[in-house]
Amino acid sequence: MLVHRHIERKRDGGKLEAHEWRELVNAYTAGTVPDYQMSAFLMACFLRGLDRGETAALTDAMRNSGSRFDLRSLGRPRIDKHSIGGVGDKVSLVLAPLVASLGIAVPMVSGRGLGHTGGTLDKLESIPGMRTNLTLAEATKQIEDIGCAMLGQTTEIAPADRKLYALRDATSTVESLPLIAASIMSKKLAEDLNGLVIDIKRGSGAFLTSFEQEVALANEMIHLGETHGCRVVAIMTAMDRPLGRACGNALETEEAIAALKGEGPDDLLEVTIALAAEMLVLAGVARDVDAARPDLLAAVRSGKAADRFRTIVQRQGGDPRVVDDPALLPQAKAVELYPAPRSGFVARVEPRAVGRGIIALGGGRAHMSDSIDPAVGFVITAKPGDRVEGGEPLASIYARDREGIMVGRAALDEAIRVADEADEPLKLVSHRITTGGVEPL
Amino acid sequence: MLVHRHIERKRDGGKLEAHEWRELVNAYTAGTVPDYQMSAFLMACFLRGLDRGETAALTDAMRNSGSRFDLRSLGRPRIDKHSIGGVGDKVSLVLAPLVASLGIAVPMVSGRGLGHTGGTLDKLESIPGMRTNLTLAEATKQIEDIGCAMLGQTTEIAPADRKLYALRDATSTVESLPLIAASIMSKKLAEDLNGLVIDIKRGSGAFLTSFEQEVALANEMIHLGETHGCRVVAIMTAMDRPLGRACGNALETEEAIAALKGEGPDDLLEVTIALAAEMLVLAGVARDVDAARPDLLAAVRSGKAADRFRTIVQRQGGDPRVVDDPALLPQAKAVELYPAPRSGFVARVEPRAVGRGIIALGGGRAHMSDSIDPAVGFVITAKPGDRVEGGEPLASIYARDREGIMVGRAALDEAIRVADEADEPLKLVSHRITTGGVEPL
Repeated sequence: MLVHRHIERKRDGGKLEAHEWRELVNAYTAGTVPDYQMSAFLMACFLRGLDRGETAALTDAMRNSGSRFDLRSLGRPRIDKHSIGGVGDKVSLVLAPLVASLGIAVPMVSGRGLGHTGGTLDKLESIPGMRTNLTLAEATKQIEDIGCAMLGQTTEIAPADRKLYALRDATSTVESLPLIAASIMSKKLAEDLNGLVIDIKRGSGAFLTSFEQEVALANEMIHLGETHGCRVVAIMTAMDRPLGRACGNALETEEAIAALKGEGPDDLLEVTIALAAEMLVLAGVARDVDAARPDLLAAVRSGKAADRFRTIVQRQGGDPRVVDDPALLPQAKAVELYPAPRSGFVARVEPRAVGRGIIALGGGRAHMSDSIDPAVGFVITAKPGDRVEGGEPLASIYARDREGIMVGRAALDEAIRVADEADEPLKLVSHRITTGGVEPL
Repeated sequence: MLVHRHIERKRDGGKLEAHEWRELVNAYTAGTVPDYQMSAFLMACFLRGLDRGETAALTDAMRNSGSRFDLRSLGRPRIDKHSIGGVGDKVSLVLAPLVASLGIAVPMVSGRGLGHTGGTLDKLESIPGMRTNLTLAEATKQIEDIGCAMLGQTTEIAPADRKLYALRDATSTVESLPLIAASIMSKKLAEDLNGLVIDIKRGSGAFLTSFEQEVALANEMIHLGETHGCRVVAIMTAMDRPLGRACGNALETEEAIAALKGEGPDDLLEVTIALAAEMLVLAGVARDVDAARPDLLAAVRSGKAADRFRTIVQRQGGDPRVVDDPALLPQAKAVELYPAPRSGFVARVEPRAVGRGIIALGGGRAHMSDSIDPAVGFVITAKPGDRVEGGEPLASIYARDREGIMVGRAALDEAIRVADEADEPLKLVSHRITTGGVEPL
């Protein structure tokens, strides 16, 4: 294969054919194309873009580089959810058991936190003993038995994507819509899904910064799904403030468990139910989202959803007692309240600053190789628009020690702004994007 | 150093400061920035461009990565020539000894052939025993003694450029005007020059394909020279056909020796004298190019120029007898005439096809690591515009064996076109570019 020709063509604004994407991805995965050629190629892709056909070809090539779930014999619809990263976003931990408890198979391959956003695997692993490195065979058996497995991208699933993502992370070629869409969908399409709901975050804490880009990314993924027999619906949700109150791995797991029992914060419940309802519609078990809601709320109220989470935790080696006794989760050594600096309205709770604060406390990653402390983070009770008195607690800081408390306080000083007036926050669940277009909710 | 930030800035169309170029180039040369990050950065540079200040900073950083000539104590002007590659371009072999024989110091650092273009070092090394891997100390002493050294880019000179050029060659990031200009000038400015003449090739066999690009590259190098106290003049010469008749390393050396004795082809002499005259003007030993010509022609006629070449060859370990007996150069085993396929006019002698033919015969390189056979090539006596009869010899093919003759014939079938009419060839020496602008000649 003449890699030079591929690099030149992309560099000069041309296109690669499907078989060329396949050959290039396979050669890179096999190690016959070196990193330094691939990174030049990726930068050319970043700056020149990929068209729909190329994005689909790259997605296929990455998906087909590894093994795939084969869940056809289940006789049940297979539906998953993916979120484009956020702060305080513990929705997956609530949604997967909730939807699975209603008879839908949820083969959920998730990621780790990177940069200011958290990751489902890190949150799950705050549960003592919990394993997420399931083999494809283990996960398949678990889905057959209990309808849900929550695992990481093993070496079996889309190894080409793993290798390419690590290279993109090292060469500033991450933030490209077609490359992002192909990376996500190469893993999701390996899950053998009938349907996928995507949570597109909006606002200052979101990965993308313009509505146009968010819609474009949604459309890329909807298109990729459609060409592979997987219906995709995207829901836009607000990320101009953290979702829920807890930000930090064990703290978020605790809040997710509360939500599974109907005791979580309203915004977390609202987003979870909105996404879960779309999954039920995609699965064909509900006529529309209004019809899906009562079943979902009933599953929470009855304890079915929490029971399913307990079963998943137990099956994956975790201590199931955390569902009833969250004190079994890792606990921070130092805890302190964060008081309002003045009276007024909570004008902003900036997710990026909160996310950076979690990294500063040792609970997040600047680089994929960093290790994390699951216990640290924040519980931010103040919401934009709240009227507060000076000195009133707005949040709690969870740290390793006194020094961490100082670090956390500085982060919240930056994140939380109390002023005479509050900006209007974004609508929590604002748009629905399908092949039919963008629909305000 | 945060390489990510540098890559991102260039990727997004921003600029690096001079100290950032220095840090990045030094870190890459030292091996602390890996190839895969540098190649992504280079592709971003290729697609986003560098401004004048950035090009100068990159040039400085690469030049300063190694040792430099210090020729100030010579008490003589130091002037060199550089050519932007061509086919049959053996000018350096004639010009360096000629100009040196008139009292000017010529510290000539040259390159090897790559792709369809040849290189001065390969031509020189066709002389039995000839060394071009002189140390800086050896070359300096030789210039003090005999006014000229003809050497390659040793590990001492601009090592950052060597490493970056090899990476660019492997990642399709060669053809960028600022990167080309910086690479050339980082070596030339290490020669401690007062002046530099650049031969910008025009036409189908040239590296660049538009007049605008050629002028832009000339202006980049003129600017880089000016900011370093080195006056630069660019001369545009035709490369819509090979220069001279011989194409291939030993064949070109033989033709260069003939030219030094006043027996070379007219076009080779004309280009050599035009460039050498500019060197004499830059050196301040001639008032203008018209005043320089008689001295140059006299040095050829008197044998001074050929004597100086003999001295250079001897000093660099080569067999000086080749100057009087070119049969001592490597000789091809198989030689055959190439006849005109029909009667008519020679419409084209395409340099790229000739250059590819030399590679096919084993006399050129597709990759920097290829080894070459110095004896093979072509002597093409037909010039565009010549009236020829069918069957009349247009060229000679020099090959290793009968198979090579077939390969050479196929190459000339592609390169030489005889038709009812000939296109007007480009003017041989057409433009002069200085800080004052572009002047037709």
